[in-house]
Amino acid sequence: MLFRRAIKADLPAIVRMLADDELGSQREKYQEPLPESYFTAFGQIDKDANHELIVTEKDGEVIGTLHLMFLPSISFQGGLRAQVESVRVDKKFQNQGMGSQIMEHAIQIAKARGAHVMQLTTHNTRNDAHRFYERLGFKASHMGMKLNLK
Amino acid sequence: MLFRRAIKADLPAIVRMLADDELGSQREKYQEPLPESYFTAFGQIDKDANHELIVTEKDGEVIGTLHLMFLPSISFQGGLRAQVESVRVDKKFQNQGMGSQIMEHAIQIAKARGAHVMQLTTHNTRNDAHRFYERLGFKASHMGMKLNLK
Repeated sequence: MLFRRAIKADLPAIVRMLADDELGSQREKYQEPLPESYFTAFGQIDKDANHELIVTEKDGEVIGTLHLMFLPSISFQGGLRAQVESVRVDKKFQNQGMGSQIMEHAIQIAKARGAHVMQLTTHNTRNDAHRFYERLGFKASHMGMKLNLK
Repeated sequence: MLFRRAIKADLPAIVRMLADDELGSQREKYQEPLPESYFTAFGQIDKDANHELIVTEKDGEVIGTLHLMFLPSISFQGGLRAQVESVRVDKKFQNQGMGSQIMEHAIQIAKARGAHVMQLTTHNTRNDAHRFYERLGFKASHMGMKLNLK
């Protein structure tokens, strides 16, 4: 297992994993070539030192992804927050501890950077994800609310 | 009512509002002078085009604050997310529609910037906040999970 920053050439593998689930399939366009909007977003993430798009490789194949971001904040005495979004493991490799490993990797990076908290939201319907994050020590202390702007 | 970007001189008023509630009072240090960590965080936020720390002014006094941030993301076809944190209205001015006005201001900025969603989390105990955000159109679709890293 290798963890590294994503490069542009990883985008098709990342989008394939994002699209390969019930909620993701309604949101993503996994096609060849990928819509340009994915590359534009990748460029913005890649150049921003507060963002780290991570992939996991196994035998040369990208099998997991996680978007780690750092959010400076006034609250908590100017405390830095870490946030994770878009955590996915290839379906072929699920339930083998890969998700925990990539999360532990992100937690180590966040601690090294001095973040006081790691935060994420998971859709209310993702019961497996809730248990997964609780096993890692996360507390479901908050409600995650979304407003569609389109 | 005036909405504007916060400047360094607004920090004491912002921290006073963050500290002036049950959860905030355990987290913040509202003292004169403010701990340096608040100024460090302000500097990081102020120089980052993806962050906008907003204050509301009434008769020359800062009476509200909101931290708006923009998060580039691969998911949703590379869709930009808007996130709000640290929304506060001075206790003297609560229940007068100030919170809605500052949120509507943030929503307008987020739409102008092209964000497809606005997201936030509120502590499970903040029942008034849940109703407030629901009235603005937010859906409680997610669980907000936090891991303490200290």
